[in-house]
Amino acid sequence: MPDSLPCFDDVLAAAARISPHAYVTPVLRSRSLDALASAQLHFKAEHLQRVGAFKFRGACNAVWALSEAEAHAGVVTHSSGNHGAALALAAQTRGISCHVVVPDGAVAAKLASIRRYGAIVHNCAANLTAREEKCLQVQHETGAVLVHPYTNARVIAGQGTAALELLNAVEALEVLVVPVGGGGLASGTAIATAALLPDCRVVLAEPEGAADTARSLAAGERLADFVPDTFCDGLRTAVGQPNFELLRRHAVEVLTVRDADTLQAMRLLWQTTKQLVEPSSAIALAAVLQNPARFAGRRVGVVLSGGNVDLDALPWSGA
Amino acid sequence: MPDSLPCFDDVLAAAARISPHAYVTPVLRSRSLDALASAQLHFKAEHLQRVGAFKFRGACNAVWALSEAEAHAGVVTHSSGNHGAALALAAQTRGISCHVVVPDGAVAAKLASIRRYGAIVHNCAANLTAREEKCLQVQHETGAVLVHPYTNARVIAGQGTAALELLNAVEALEVLVVPVGGGGLASGTAIATAALLPDCRVVLAEPEGAADTARSLAAGERLADFVPDTFCDGLRTAVGQPNFELLRRHAVEVLTVRDADTLQAMRLLWQTTKQLVEPSSAIALAAVLQNPARFAGRRVGVVLSGGNVDLDALPWSGA
Repeated sequence: MPDSLPCFDDVLAAAARISPHAYVTPVLRSRSLDALASAQLHFKAEHLQRVGAFKFRGACNAVWALSEAEAHAGVVTHSSGNHGAALALAAQTRGISCHVVVPDGAVAAKLASIRRYGAIVHNCAANLTAREEKCLQVQHETGAVLVHPYTNARVIAGQGTAALELLNAVEALEVLVVPVGGGGLASGTAIATAALLPDCRVVLAEPEGAADTARSLAAGERLADFVPDTFCDGLRTAVGQPNFELLRRHAVEVLTVRDADTLQAMRLLWQTTKQLVEPSSAIALAAVLQNPARFAGRRVGVVLSGGNVDLDALPWSGA
Repeated sequence: MPDSLPCFDDVLAAAARISPHAYVTPVLRSRSLDALASAQLHFKAEHLQRVGAFKFRGACNAVWALSEAEAHAGVVTHSSGNHGAALALAAQTRGISCHVVVPDGAVAAKLASIRRYGAIVHNCAANLTAREEKCLQVQHETGAVLVHPYTNARVIAGQGTAALELLNAVEALEVLVVPVGGGGLASGTAIATAALLPDCRVVLAEPEGAADTARSLAAGERLADFVPDTFCDGLRTAVGQPNFELLRRHAVEVLTVRDADTLQAMRLLWQTTKQLVEPSSAIALAAVLQNPARFAGRRVGVVLSGGNVDLDALPWSGA
């Protein structure tokens, strides 16, 4: 299954598999933000998920789907942050070892939580080739199973459980807005939404400085060769091939967002909801606020994907 | 009633009176913080209260307890922040006018929300005499009723409803920790706890640089003459006379906390719970973490009193 495209049954299986370990996160409302957007906003609070991000869902599903024999030598991944911490904790819940290949320059807060959950950290240069080579090397040396941050089918299915919960908790949502980086959350959301509530549109929020998903969907082919320029540290990766394929099939929309608007939305979320969400989450609210014609009057689901902010590197520090 | 000491019946009356307007805030838990404190911590999330602070409870009780005739000319108060915003919103829920006397140098975020809720702002110099004189002047000119931030009996009774909810929501708490500034929350909590769960101890957390409550209780008389030196902007005021009297009667304990420990507790709360609480709230967790012998192994209630942080003046900015 890890190499084929996941389907809705896989999302349902994931929900059952992760339920002893993952939280059913709350859905938050805000009078002020509803007024500002002239819409009903329902925020799925994945920053309150374990490890502070939706990533725990996919990692947990991947770890617990392994056979005893597969799980024996542990798991390995490369991740600039949340997926690494998520896999580390998921491995800990099963009592197996976890190796995380971390590129130089990763966010300090995220690196700290990878270590806190007991993973063995391997450093490498900050480019995809170096990460994949180091990962391969660890696989060969340890026998650990690779759990890719977003192309792994069980990871995608796991991420789809956030939308599953949101659509079950809130009736008749008309639009669901999620951020897109590698596309694990985006494609899992597309699968769950198409099956549960086909009339509900999935809208992806993508940084202008890393808008490969928007360009890829417009071109009809995956265009992964670009240099990201965004402070949304969770959204700098190119959309994965299976993720792109799923997003194309489900005809999702993409809205691109300027970092300045994301930053403003993040401050607004902090101030009005008192929820510490990271830039890669705030981008979804920014997409709503920047496109009033698209969302006004609607019942909108917004996935707040994570809350792992580096407090020593706030974008307005020293401003 | 506003000039006499409130009792538990007043807290119950306040709970009924504010229930159409105030939120019943959730009680939050954190595995990491429990592990760190070796205790069971139950956080009453008053930063999720309307206006982002427990202050809405007392203000709302005071506004809705007024007769039609009293309410007609509106209300007035002096406040460096949360109480001003709280009274403004409370007045708005009743459709009456609200005047707020604001000392120069008040936190920008708090000033902004006072204005957002439609209050008429009057500026004055940053000392108690100037505030009280300006307040008196507004009373004379408008006929508005003064609602003092912490000595007003209905305000005290209203603040007591947070502890009421917490003690009803969580069984068998052994200690309840709340911050103390003017003492509205502290004395309301003492009243509610003594009546509902007499074996539960009330512990106040007070900044070392504004430890007048600790000194006053030790001396057996109110010592209000001091110059505060703390970044807990909500806790710079001296404890009020009726508040002191109630705290003395209920034999509460006070723990003093260094700002450095409060700052560390605030970062910890932000990072682990993703809840944006202000320094004046984080001090309660700091008191717990700095006194392990006092709290280890216990079921501890902690009131997170507010979340109105000035994001442009974070204490570690530029550090």
